[in-house]
Amino acid sequence: MYEMHFAVPMAGAVLNTINTRLDPKNIATILRHSEAKVFFVDYEYVPLAREALRLLMGDLNGSVAAESSMPLVVVIDDVDSPTGVRLGELEYEQLVYSGDPSFVPNEIEDEWAPIALNYTSGTTSAPKGVVYSHRGAYLSTLSLILGWEMGSEPVYLWSLPMFHCNGWTFTWGVAARGGTNVCIRNTTAHEIYLNIAQHKVTHMCSAPIVFNILLDAKPHERRELTTRVEILTGGAPPPAALLEKIERLGFHVVHAYGLTEATGPALICEWRSQWNQLSPQEQAKLKARQGISVLTLAEADVKDLKTMQSVPRDGKTMGEIVLRGSSIMKGYFKDENATAKAFHQGWYTTGDVGVVHPDGYMEIKDRSKDVIISGGENISSVEVEAALYRHPSVLLAAVVAMPHPRWGESPCAFVTLKKNLTATVTEADIISHCRKNLAGFMIPKKVVFLDDLPKTSTGKIQKFELRAIAKTLVVTETHPSNKKSTQIKREQPIWYRNQPYEQMMASSRL
Amino acid sequence: MYEMHFAVPMAGAVLNTINTRLDPKNIATILRHSEAKVFFVDYEYVPLAREALRLLMGDLNGSVAAESSMPLVVVIDDVDSPTGVRLGELEYEQLVYSGDPSFVPNEIEDEWAPIALNYTSGTTSAPKGVVYSHRGAYLSTLSLILGWEMGSEPVYLWSLPMFHCNGWTFTWGVAARGGTNVCIRNTTAHEIYLNIAQHKVTHMCSAPIVFNILLDAKPHERRELTTRVEILTGGAPPPAALLEKIERLGFHVVHAYGLTEATGPALICEWRSQWNQLSPQEQAKLKARQGISVLTLAEADVKDLKTMQSVPRDGKTMGEIVLRGSSIMKGYFKDENATAKAFHQGWYTTGDVGVVHPDGYMEIKDRSKDVIISGGENISSVEVEAALYRHPSVLLAAVVAMPHPRWGESPCAFVTLKKNLTATVTEADIISHCRKNLAGFMIPKKVVFLDDLPKTSTGKIQKFELRAIAKTLVVTETHPSNKKSTQIKREQPIWYRNQPYEQMMASSRL
Repeated sequence: MYEMHFAVPMAGAVLNTINTRLDPKNIATILRHSEAKVFFVDYEYVPLAREALRLLMGDLNGSVAAESSMPLVVVIDDVDSPTGVRLGELEYEQLVYSGDPSFVPNEIEDEWAPIALNYTSGTTSAPKGVVYSHRGAYLSTLSLILGWEMGSEPVYLWSLPMFHCNGWTFTWGVAARGGTNVCIRNTTAHEIYLNIAQHKVTHMCSAPIVFNILLDAKPHERRELTTRVEILTGGAPPPAALLEKIERLGFHVVHAYGLTEATGPALICEWRSQWNQLSPQEQAKLKARQGISVLTLAEADVKDLKTMQSVPRDGKTMGEIVLRGSSIMKGYFKDENATAKAFHQGWYTTGDVGVVHPDGYMEIKDRSKDVIISGGENISSVEVEAALYRHPSVLLAAVVAMPHPRWGESPCAFVTLKKNLTATVTEADIISHCRKNLAGFMIPKKVVFLDDLPKTSTGKIQKFELRAIAKTLVVTETHPSNKKSTQIKREQPIWYRNQPYEQMMASSRL
Repeated sequence: MYEMHFAVPMAGAVLNTINTRLDPKNIATILRHSEAKVFFVDYEYVPLAREALRLLMGDLNGSVAAESSMPLVVVIDDVDSPTGVRLGELEYEQLVYSGDPSFVPNEIEDEWAPIALNYTSGTTSAPKGVVYSHRGAYLSTLSLILGWEMGSEPVYLWSLPMFHCNGWTFTWGVAARGGTNVCIRNTTAHEIYLNIAQHKVTHMCSAPIVFNILLDAKPHERRELTTRVEILTGGAPPPAALLEKIERLGFHVVHAYGLTEATGPALICEWRSQWNQLSPQEQAKLKARQGISVLTLAEADVKDLKTMQSVPRDGKTMGEIVLRGSSIMKGYFKDENATAKAFHQGWYTTGDVGVVHPDGYMEIKDRSKDVIISGGENISSVEVEAALYRHPSVLLAAVVAMPHPRWGESPCAFVTLKKNLTATVTEADIISHCRKNLAGFMIPKKVVFLDDLPKTSTGKIQKFELRAIAKTLVVTETHPSNKKSTQIKREQPIWYRNQPYEQMMASSRL
């Protein structure tokens, strides 16, 4: 995948990295929607790819698709110990070997031409393919090596998948810095510590989940860090306690904020030397802020979307975080409506609600879009809801983010069952149903049954109230197997104002 | 001048910084050629500016120019201790004070629009005004903070003048990094050491001349460096001995190569960690190379201009260093001919002859253009020759660079006198004549009298042969007052091949 980041654009084609954690259905949808011409598959994922191709073939033509409309498949075998696993005839290294070494790539004639396509969430009904331009990817790459102050000859450990916004552009960034890429198959504590020690790793990116992996490592898995390892983290603000623990191990954490539509990180919490004098608690609080615009973004701001006025820099007044600049996506592939909706008066609207502090640093306070970020993966709540609605007993379903000690956030489902059901439906039933219809990481960690969901006067489900409840839920580390593990702390949720708490409790199946 | 780097572009105007070392005639020429609308003058330079304006006024209209075609003059007084020196009515701080604080700068509609105009050498007959675009200046700024690995919150000492390619873009770069600017009026050892100590300077740029200033400092002028000071140097490769001495003081030197037409540094000798194992001599040799392309330049190469083929990476085959990319100038202002000549098949031709080493690092071996770089200032040999030709006794004149222990290079004049002169003409006479016609730094440090100058079959003076002689000249640190201080080491110069050395010596006045 690393080589593809250079070979594909140099061949004049568009790169589309696919999340290996998706299920065959999602992958088939992406292959179809992207009109994939060549499909490179690591040998480990051949079973997944085979199933996706089978679905694609059936999908394409009612029954069986013409072979000509199927992508050319190339399996990437292990270079050091070939497995012989194939899916068709082509193998990657052989293909490379048969290439023309004197090939001179064409110049990019239009810097706004697409370089990459990245699907944000696998919503089957409307996959959103984010299109990056060469210009945008280039400037974003510079942004990140500048913002992170990544010096010459870094040794970069790939704990962050390259299919996440092209590794937050560090696929290109490490090359720009003349660095070394250390790739691992499994993001386990053993693999990470071993590779840091062996290759003298200087840099890695990660969702906060990796902090837990590093901290939970068993003594025999650990290695002493001989030099400081820089970690760029995003997805969720790192909690103070976690920060302190991870930095004590010799890691140094910088917090960034971004999204696929912004070619990865768009804000970075650049450290100010004057903060060094503060207490660890105050430092952690500052470090958890989303920060300031990366250098090559034209502008990042927090605005009242109705008036498009910037909110005052008081750390209190909320508005939506909006972004503008070359590294913002060109749009969603083949989806003019979604593209038009994503922009407001030339600004990309992130869906995140935040404030601006007096020093110009931004901080997120709430989320207006239906995305759950779990272990660094975006989960579309709409997609999980769609799966829930496919259960014959479900009348209403709403999915929101619930804090999770390991994954940062997990999906929490609020469900109203149909009336007059003959059989009892349990949390385990719903989860088992989801397992058949969703990729593993998308399955709700909790299902809460309510007799009714809080709605606005126009009948729209008020998710912010559900989020307030979800925040009060105590999550156990092990997967809950039935609804009995779901407990609500007896704190007043926000929507108590609308409906007396006791009444809600009485009418719910909690 | 620092504030102007932001205020002028934000006002939608084009910045033209003027070298304060130029003489009134050169300044008047620049003011006229650039069609300057507003002329900001530091109070120290009011006498120089007054004289330039007087010349401009006379120049413009045969006798006296209309006042309307003269620039508006604004004197910048000292903020801390006002001198009251004026040139007209306007004073800078008062002007700023009368401004509208709610003014919102317009967006740049075309990123290729000009941001700055910089005159490369004051050749009176054809001033060359290099035009930068917003895009070029922006990318070049990113290049330099990336290439030099300038981190967040630098403390930057302005030993390099801001009128040199906009301070090699660090006017903008220091702002981009949230840094502190330390400005000094005089580049003396005392001022430099004092400010480094007082402000904890982390970065400075300089021509190699500043190394000498730092090394020649008297004990009472010195300050112990408490932290490493990064120096980016250009103009001439720093000699190994000098490097070793300056680094022993606590400075760390990075060598870059550039020119006004490339918005400052275009190549940077990026250090490779594997070189750390080499001996200091080998390290100095590597450090003296011009290096590799900065990150935002499309391409830098060494080519045979006839075939436009890249030279092999053998460290031996010579070709011309050529550059391509957004940060290369848009062209010379109002000079289509010179602009057309500067480019060859889309490449900017630097006039420097070099090689490419097997590791891709470039190194200059010779110069094909008539520029002498003295103490960081470009001197056009053509301009010095023009002054020499104005001397009634000079028949032929050619000026080339001569190595100089303090200034890096100095102009060395080769002169053939007219025959049948009644009076003796000495080196002192020629130098005295130059002093009346040229800015101080342009005056030849040596004048060599020859009965004839080496010429090609078509009669063109072969400067490379004169350069070979100039290299053998022993330069004394004090200014030579007569020709007796000029000595030639008895090494064979290159043009001995064309003309027997003894014969040359006999026919010359050496």
